[in-house]
Amino acid sequence: MKRLENISMESYINNVIGHVDNTIIEKLTPGLQDEYERNLYEAATHLFKAGGKRLRPVITYMITDMLGGDTNRAILAGAGIEMLHVFTLIHDDIMDRDELRRGVKSVHAEYGINNAILAGDLLHALGMRTILEAVRGLNEQIIYESIRLIHDSIIIIAEGQAIDMGFENSPIVAEDRYFKMIEKKTAQLFGAAMGLGALISGQDTKIVDMTIRAGINTGIAFQIVDDILGLTGDETEIGKPKFSDLREGKKTILIIKAFEDADRNEKEFITRVLGNKEVSQSELEKAVNIILRYSLDYARQKASEYIKQAKILIDQLPEKNPLPRKYISQVLDLTIERRK
Amino acid sequence: MKRLENISMESYINNVIGHVDNTIIEKLTPGLQDEYERNLYEAATHLFKAGGKRLRPVITYMITDMLGGDTNRAILAGAGIEMLHVFTLIHDDIMDRDELRRGVKSVHAEYGINNAILAGDLLHALGMRTILEAVRGLNEQIIYESIRLIHDSIIIIAEGQAIDMGFENSPIVAEDRYFKMIEKKTAQLFGAAMGLGALISGQDTKIVDMTIRAGINTGIAFQIVDDILGLTGDETEIGKPKFSDLREGKKTILIIKAFEDADRNEKEFITRVLGNKEVSQSELEKAVNIILRYSLDYARQKASEYIKQAKILIDQLPEKNPLPRKYISQVLDLTIERRK
Repeated sequence: MKRLENISMESYINNVIGHVDNTIIEKLTPGLQDEYERNLYEAATHLFKAGGKRLRPVITYMITDMLGGDTNRAILAGAGIEMLHVFTLIHDDIMDRDELRRGVKSVHAEYGINNAILAGDLLHALGMRTILEAVRGLNEQIIYESIRLIHDSIIIIAEGQAIDMGFENSPIVAEDRYFKMIEKKTAQLFGAAMGLGALISGQDTKIVDMTIRAGINTGIAFQIVDDILGLTGDETEIGKPKFSDLREGKKTILIIKAFEDADRNEKEFITRVLGNKEVSQSELEKAVNIILRYSLDYARQKASEYIKQAKILIDQLPEKNPLPRKYISQVLDLTIERRK
Repeated sequence: MKRLENISMESYINNVIGHVDNTIIEKLTPGLQDEYERNLYEAATHLFKAGGKRLRPVITYMITDMLGGDTNRAILAGAGIEMLHVFTLIHDDIMDRDELRRGVKSVHAEYGINNAILAGDLLHALGMRTILEAVRGLNEQIIYESIRLIHDSIIIIAEGQAIDMGFENSPIVAEDRYFKMIEKKTAQLFGAAMGLGALISGQDTKIVDMTIRAGINTGIAFQIVDDILGLTGDETEIGKPKFSDLREGKKTILIIKAFEDADRNEKEFITRVLGNKEVSQSELEKAVNIILRYSLDYARQKASEYIKQAKILIDQLPEKNPLPRKYISQVLDLTIERRK
């Protein structure tokens, strides 16, 4: 891919997303004859057509570009990371019974649970296959480390999802367990997205580890903001039902913090609402107001701190190209300022 | 692993299975503290504790041993292949609503659908991770080809499962579509199991392709025999409910052949029974008798032909060690003579 100079961040990002999306669509259009196979690929394509921020491929690309790596490889790597991300979304939506995602029906709601399980499995393998293509021809150490990083990440994400599901049946959760959970479930893939950019660019272990840590800090901030948007966001902007975290009994940083600081009556009220499918909309809203009063500033503060840590790490990385470094920093700010 | 001379086939195979199982159990016991994570690994371990033939790792090992490859790598590769196999079993059982597997409750029946989806995803990544370990330190071409073969196989298996599920809603299926389906759904992993043995042993593309084809022929025969055992086997030996293929409306070679040759009344009867959850046990048995009368010899003949093709290919491979070559041939015979 041609390296672009002096373009706006918006153009830079749109250019990356265009190439990533073309790659994904190409991989998901293998020209199969059998109608049942075509149906499977259609189910696997569903969420890509519905939009999404493509944040993970964008950061893979920016890290690669900043470190002077091959940006054609970064597009493939980013496309693979996004396919893995969507694989986890599809399976998570089945487990969480979420019927809406990216403003459209979730895959199992549209194609049934069986097709959704299989579409997720397909994207898992296709995503890995695309990342393998990204590192093809590099030396065996880079190939090994790249593939290992991604498999380890998928393992860690599965562990994180297990903890998240378990929390739904826990009365209340300590804050450090919550942070461990989101580090595994959400932040690990951000770490892998950045780390892969460094690996592709031929960086040594120390630099790769720093990018992974930068990504993990970014991902933790991202998840905190997701938790905030789940209570404050506009349903059409966030693309999923409002307050679904509350209905499912998810333990988010906001709920944990409110539960720590609220008075006894408020605690009892939150406990009654949490994970209770029978409560009314006005009760839900009352619970949200209580929760936000105790936790919104705290959660925003936490997200800012993690982004600050990510930026400190990014600033220490070597730099071949100044434009992507500048833009990464702006993208990290957007991660916490976003409304969807 | 020490190469064993002059041991019986049974001891040879049990030795391989012992090492493979130790590797699998080690990978599934990562020493995690969180109860919800431990629960996930327990669900992922469930089917390994229930037995199973470990046929795929055994053939990976035998090919490696015969070609003079590193048998320690073969154990890791075989363990990875078996983990991938069990990942597909767990997800298939959810999709097919099969409550029994290897004589015990299937994973979703024991741990719930959510844990089963996640346990499958975990085994997918862990299996790949173990195969990566098997090729670690080999040259980049071997690493690339090995990982690509396995990802491609998982993609093909998902396509095959999509076709198999689609067939359940098809009135009747042409024999060539059935063969294409089982080549994808079942035989591909046998092809990968043998091909991986050749790759580990540093063989060139021609030899690798021959082993993959030998594996695919073996896998097709294996699936035909599975279809036969689904109608003739002893429930406690095969470890799953008798006639479940019929109840689910699966299109097996036996049903396809019987449907071709049976008279009109018999066809109508089979059609009524197939995929019909309401029919009585005696009606099921009557349908089975009709089906077997038209198809049993034919199916056995087909299985023999595929095993013959596999053996012709194996015989053309170079050989460093005569014992594993002899034993592969015997294992292939057992594939069609087995009762479970």
